[in-house]
Amino acid sequence: MIIVMKPYATKEEIANVEKKLVNLGFTTHPIYGEIKTVIGAIGDKTRVEASNFSNMAGVEAIVPIMKPYKLVGKELQKEPTIVDVEGVKFGGKELVIIAGPCAIENEEQIYSVARSIKKSGAKILRGGAFKPRTSPYSFQGLEEEGLKLLHRVKEDLELLVITEVVDTRDVELVSQYSDILQIGARNMQNFRLLSECGKTQKPVLLKRGLSSTIEEWLMAAEYILSAGNPRVILCERGIRTFETATRNTLDINAVAVVKELSHLPIIADPSHGTGNWRYVSAASRAFIAAGADGLIVEVHPDPDNATSDGPQSLRPEMFDDLMKVLKPIAEAVGRVL
Amino acid sequence: MIIVMKPYATKEEIANVEKKLVNLGFTTHPIYGEIKTVIGAIGDKTRVEASNFSNMAGVEAIVPIMKPYKLVGKELQKEPTIVDVEGVKFGGKELVIIAGPCAIENEEQIYSVARSIKKSGAKILRGGAFKPRTSPYSFQGLEEEGLKLLHRVKEDLELLVITEVVDTRDVELVSQYSDILQIGARNMQNFRLLSECGKTQKPVLLKRGLSSTIEEWLMAAEYILSAGNPRVILCERGIRTFETATRNTLDINAVAVVKELSHLPIIADPSHGTGNWRYVSAASRAFIAAGADGLIVEVHPDPDNATSDGPQSLRPEMFDDLMKVLKPIAEAVGRVL
Amino acid sequence: MIIVMKPYATKEEIANVEKKLVNLGFTTHPIYGEIKTVIGAIGDKTRVEASNFSNMAGVEAIVPIMKPYKLVGKELQKEPTIVDVEGVKFGGKELVIIAGPCAIENEEQIYSVARSIKKSGAKILRGGAFKPRTSPYSFQGLEEEGLKLLHRVKEDLELLVITEVVDTRDVELVSQYSDILQIGARNMQNFRLLSECGKTQKPVLLKRGLSSTIEEWLMAAEYILSAGNPRVILCERGIRTFETATRNTLDINAVAVVKELSHLPIIADPSHGTGNWRYVSAASRAFIAAGADGLIVEVHPDPDNATSDGPQSLRPEMFDDLMKVLKPIAEAVGRVL
Amino acid sequence: MIIVMKPYATKEEIANVEKKLVNLGFTTHPIYGEIKTVIGAIGDKTRVEASNFSNMAGVEAIVPIMKPYKLVGKELQKEPTIVDVEGVKFGGKELVIIAGPCAIENEEQIYSVARSIKKSGAKILRGGAFKPRTSPYSFQGLEEEGLKLLHRVKEDLELLVITEVVDTRDVELVSQYSDILQIGARNMQNFRLLSECGKTQKPVLLKRGLSSTIEEWLMAAEYILSAGNPRVILCERGIRTFETATRNTLDINAVAVVKELSHLPIIADPSHGTGNWRYVSAASRAFIAAGADGLIVEVHPDPDNATSDGPQSLRPEMFDDLMKVLKPIAEAVGRVL
Repeated sequence: MIIVMKPYATKEEIANVEKKLVNLGFTTHPIYGEIKTVIGAIGDKTRVEASNFSNMAGVEAIVPIMKPYKLVGKELQKEPTIVDVEGVKFGGKELVIIAGPCAIENEEQIYSVARSIKKSGAKILRGGAFKPRTSPYSFQGLEEEGLKLLHRVKEDLELLVITEVVDTRDVELVSQYSDILQIGARNMQNFRLLSECGKTQKPVLLKRGLSSTIEEWLMAAEYILSAGNPRVILCERGIRTFETATRNTLDINAVAVVKELSHLPIIADPSHGTGNWRYVSAASRAFIAAGADGLIVEVHPDPDNATSDGPQSLRPEMFDDLMKVLKPIAEAVGRVL
Repeated sequence: MIIVMKPYATKEEIANVEKKLVNLGFTTHPIYGEIKTVIGAIGDKTRVEASNFSNMAGVEAIVPIMKPYKLVGKELQKEPTIVDVEGVKFGGKELVIIAGPCAIENEEQIYSVARSIKKSGAKILRGGAFKPRTSPYSFQGLEEEGLKLLHRVKEDLELLVITEVVDTRDVELVSQYSDILQIGARNMQNFRLLSECGKTQKPVLLKRGLSSTIEEWLMAAEYILSAGNPRVILCERGIRTFETATRNTLDINAVAVVKELSHLPIIADPSHGTGNWRYVSAASRAFIAAGADGLIVEVHPDPDNATSDGPQSLRPEMFDDLMKVLKPIAEAVGRVL
Repeated sequence: MIIVMKPYATKEEIANVEKKLVNLGFTTHPIYGEIKTVIGAIGDKTRVEASNFSNMAGVEAIVPIMKPYKLVGKELQKEPTIVDVEGVKFGGKELVIIAGPCAIENEEQIYSVARSIKKSGAKILRGGAFKPRTSPYSFQGLEEEGLKLLHRVKEDLELLVITEVVDTRDVELVSQYSDILQIGARNMQNFRLLSECGKTQKPVLLKRGLSSTIEEWLMAAEYILSAGNPRVILCERGIRTFETATRNTLDINAVAVVKELSHLPIIADPSHGTGNWRYVSAASRAFIAAGADGLIVEVHPDPDNATSDGPQSLRPEMFDDLMKVLKPIAEAVGRVL
Repeated sequence: MIIVMKPYATKEEIANVEKKLVNLGFTTHPIYGEIKTVIGAIGDKTRVEASNFSNMAGVEAIVPIMKPYKLVGKELQKEPTIVDVEGVKFGGKELVIIAGPCAIENEEQIYSVARSIKKSGAKILRGGAFKPRTSPYSFQGLEEEGLKLLHRVKEDLELLVITEVVDTRDVELVSQYSDILQIGARNMQNFRLLSECGKTQKPVLLKRGLSSTIEEWLMAAEYILSAGNPRVILCERGIRTFETATRNTLDINAVAVVKELSHLPIIADPSHGTGNWRYVSAASRAFIAAGADGLIVEVHPDPDNATSDGPQSLRPEMFDDLMKVLKPIAEAVGRVL
C-alpha cells in the first residue's frame, strides 16, 4: 500500500508512520516530494489493517495497491471458470438461458411455463419458493411446497431448476431440491448466507446488490469461494440510481469489467433490470452483445394475474420470440444459443 | 389507487380495466379527460396486486394512493412512540446517546471504553460481537465470547448494552445478552431476520439500508411491528451516493421526513455516516439540531489499533468534548442531554 | 392532474382545493375514499402551476397525469423523426457512426484520424474546438483555429463534421463551420444555450446530463424544438452513480425508454460512457443490439499523447475492428451499417 | 503521482513508463513488490497529463497525489477567507442570512418580502430575474425589469441584493444591479460563465451542482479565482440521489469537508435542499449547528400563488420564527446571528 502524507508533514510524523509499518512487518520506501511525502509499504497485509494508519498525525490518505480479493481475481487463475451444472455450462461457448416465473404459484402454472420455456430453448427453470418482499403483507412464496413442485417439474420434464435461498436455516433444505442456489440482490452482503452456501457443493448464482460496487460484488463471491465452493455465477440485475423511468439501471459496463477482473462467468437479469416487459428484449439483446454468458428471464403464462413481478414478465410466446432474436446476435459475438 | 390510461385509450380498454377492478372488489370512478382517462379505484387492496394492471392494454401507469405501511404510519397512531429500555427512553424529551467500539476486542478494551463513555453521559454501550465485514479475511468478531464480555460489563458498570445480530439462528442467543437488538444497514431488507426479531420482546434498532428509500425503511420496520414487536428505533447512518469524500452521505432530511410520516423514534450514526472522526462532531451537532432523538457514536481507546472502523472512531476524550458541545444545542431545540 | 388529500382531510379543506381549481379553469372530479379523498382536475394547465396546491391545508400530494413535454412526445407525432444531415440520416434503417478525437490538436492529427475513420465507414468526424474541462489549468481547445481546421478537413475529405458549442456567444460562429451543433452533458440544462441552438437551422446533438432523468433530457430537447428547430438527436453518454470502476454508468435502458416516449433518434457515446478503451467495444455492441440509431466514438492516432480523454480513445485500427464487429449485430436487429 | 503497474508487469513495460516520465520532466522512484511494481513520479505536472499513462502496456492505475486545485485549497492559504460584501461578512463570526422569493414577480411582492425579511434580521435579499426552468413553458423571470426592481428595493430599503446570472452575455448587466452574482447548480460546470464572473469585481455565490463531487465544486471555484476574483462563497443546496421523499438530499457532511479542504466560506440552501417548507427549519438548524457560515432561504408572501418554488417557500412569519430558533444554536457553536 501507499501512505500519502499531508503537505509539509513533519519528519517526526513520517518517522512514526514508518516505525509502525516496520513493526507490522512491512518494508518501507519513502518518496520525498517538494510538498508531500508518500511512503510505499511492501508486505503481506490486508486492506483492513491499513485503515489503522489513517488516523495518525500527518497522514492524508491510504492507497491500497493490491486487490482485496484473491480467489475470484485473475492473479491466481487466468483462464475463465466454467461452471458445469449437470452438463449445462456457464462460461463456455454456449449461452445459458434461465427462464420461469418470479414465484411458483401452483402446479398448473409452473408446469405450463416449464414446458413452454423448454420448447423455446431454455435449459434451466427458475421459480421462487421463498420470496423476499418489500411488504410483509405481500405473498411470501409457497416455501417447501414450492420446492417440491419445482423438483417434480425437474424430474418430469428433465429441466434443471434454480430457486432462491433467503435464510441460513434453509440452505440445506433448498439444496435438496434445487440444482443451483440463488442469492438475491438484497442478500448479496448477507455474509452468513454466503458462507453457508459456500459450504455446500451446489453452484451459486450471486446477484449483484442494488447499491454494490463491482468490487464489493467480487468480495461477496470471495466469501463463497473461500468457504470451499468454487462454482459461482455472477448475475448483473441493475443498480439503484436517480432514474425512475425503469425499476433499476442495468450496468451494461459490468460485463466487460467483470471479464477483465475475474474468471467467473456472468449473466444478466433483464427482467429486474428494467422492471417492464416492454424493455426486456432490448436489454437481453444488449447483454448478449456485450459478452454475457447467459440470461435469467421472468416468464409467466398470465402476467396480469401473477402474484409478483407481473409487469416485468414475458408471456411464453414473447419469450419464444426473444430466443429467436438473440440467436444471430449470439453468433455475431462468437457464441452459440 | 388511480389507473392512468394511455392517451386516447379505447373504450374497450377502459372497460376491461374497470371490469377487472370490479371483479377484485373495487368500486371504480373514471374521469374522462380530453386526451387521457384516469380511473379511481376504491377498495381494500394493497399496492402489490395493483401492479397486475400495468400490463393491460391501454394502461400507462398505476398511482397508489394509500401508504403501503400501516402500523408504523401516523394514520393509526398520531402520538410519538416512546421506546422504553429499562428506563432509558428513546423519543422522549431526553436525548439518548449510545457509544462504544465498533467491535468488542478484549476485556480491557471494552471495560475501558465503557467506563469513559458512562462518565461522559452515555446511557448505552455499543460493541459488535458478530461483525458483517466486506472481506472474508477481516476480523469477524468474538461471537459468543464477545456477548459474554458485553454482558459482564453491563452488570458490573450498570450500563445498558446493544449489539448487532446478523443471522436468524443467533436471535435467541443475542437476546439473552443484549438489551437492544441491532439490525445493520446490510440486513435492513433481510426480511427473515426482521421477522425473527419481531417475534422477540427486545427493542430493535433498525439501521437504514445503504440504498434504501425512507419508504422501504419504514416497510422494514413494518415487518417487525407486524410480527408483534412495537419497540423499533430507526437509525439514519448515511446512504450511498456518488460522493467519495466521505464514506456515506448522511441524509439530514430523513429526520424531518420520518417525524412527519411515522411515530417511531429516530437516532443517527455520525460515525458510519461520515467514516472520518474529523467530521463526527459536525454531523452529531447537525442531527441533534434537526430533531433526532439520539446518537450512536463509535468510541475506541486506541483507534490506531482498532480491529475495525478505527478511522471513524473518537477517542474517549473527544467523545467527552462532543457531549459538552451537544448540550446547549439540545437545549436550543427543547431537548435535554 | 390528481390532487391527493391527506387522510381524513376536512370538508372545508377539500372545498378550498376545489374552489382554487375552479378559479384556475379546471373542472373537478372528487373521489371520496374511506380514508383519503382524491380530486381529479381536468383542464389545460401545466405541471408548474400545479405545484401551487401542495402547500394548501389538507393536501398530501399532486400527481401530474399529462407528460410535461409536447413536441418531443408521441402524442402529436407517432412516426419516428429522421434527422437528415446533408444526406446522412439519423433514425433511418442505416446506422450513423460518428468518430474522431476528443479535441482537435493540430492539422496532422485531425487529418490522420479523419482519413482512417472515413475508410472504416464513419460518416461524420467529431473533434472539439471548445473543450469544457474540469480544471482551468487543462487544455481548453484550439477555439476558432480548431473550427477552421475542422472545416478544411470537411471540404478536403468530404466528411460531415460535428463539434461542441459551450457558450451562447459562440453559436453563430460554430454554426458557420459545423454540420451539427453538439451540446455536452454539462450544458444539457444550460437553457439559454438550448434556446440559442433552437433558433438556428443546424441539427443539434443533445447529450444527456450526468444526473438527468430521461424526462429532464426530453424537456431539454423540448427547449430546442419549441424554439423552432425540430432536428434534435439525443445521445446517451452515461450517468453518474456510486460505481467507480467506470467513468460513468451507461444507461442501456435509455434506448428502449426513449423509443417508447419520443419520436427523436438516439445514439450512444461508448467512450465517455465507459472512460476506458478496453470497454468501448462491448458498450458499442450493446447499444447497437439494443436499438440505438448510431454511435459517437473517440478515436485518436496516439492516445498516449492525447491532450484529453486519451484513456478512452481507440486507435484507428481498433476502431476499424469495431466497425467490423458491429456489422452482423446491426443486421441481427434489422439495421444496416 | 503514483503509477501502479499490473501484476507481474514486464521489465520492459516498467522501463517504458519510466522513460516516458523522465521525458516529461519527472524523477522516478520505482518500488518493486513481489507481485506489483509501483512507480512514484515527482515533478510539476497536473493530473490531466497523468491520464496519458493509463493506456500504456502494463499500467493498471494512476493515483494522483497532489490536489488538482491550488488557489481554493489550504496549501497556499491556511486562514479562512472572509468575503466582505459592503460590510456584510461571509465567513466571520456573524452568520449571514439571505432570504427572499425564488422569482421577482412584481413590485408589491418584492417590497413586501424585503421589508419582512429585513425586520427578521436577514442582511441580503434574494430574487431571481433570470430563471433557469426545466420546462420552456414555465415562467422564465422578469429579466431586466426584475433587475431594476431589485435595485430599487436595494436603494429604498438599504438591503444588499443577490440574483442569478445564467448567460455569459448577461454578466455585465447583472453586475450593474446586484451586489453578488449567483451561479446556480445547473451552471456549476458552465466554465465560460465561471470565467466571465471571475473577471468581474463582484462576489460570487457558487452553488454546488446536483451531481458534483466536492472536488469538482472546488475546481469550479478555482475557475473563478484563477480568473482573478477571490471573492467566492460556496453554497450546498443538495445533491441528487435515489431518495424521492425530498427534492434533493442535503449533504450535511459537505460543511466539515469543505472547511477541511478549503479556506472559502460555505452557506446552505435549505429550500432547494428539501423542496418542502415543512423541512426547511430542520435543515436550517442542522447546517448552522454543523458550522455553515450562513443560509439562503426562500420566503414568499403568498407561496400558494408563487410563480415558482411555492412548495418550498416559507411565509414571512415562519421565516421570522426560524430566525429566532437559529439564534441559540448559532451561539451554541460560537457564532452570532
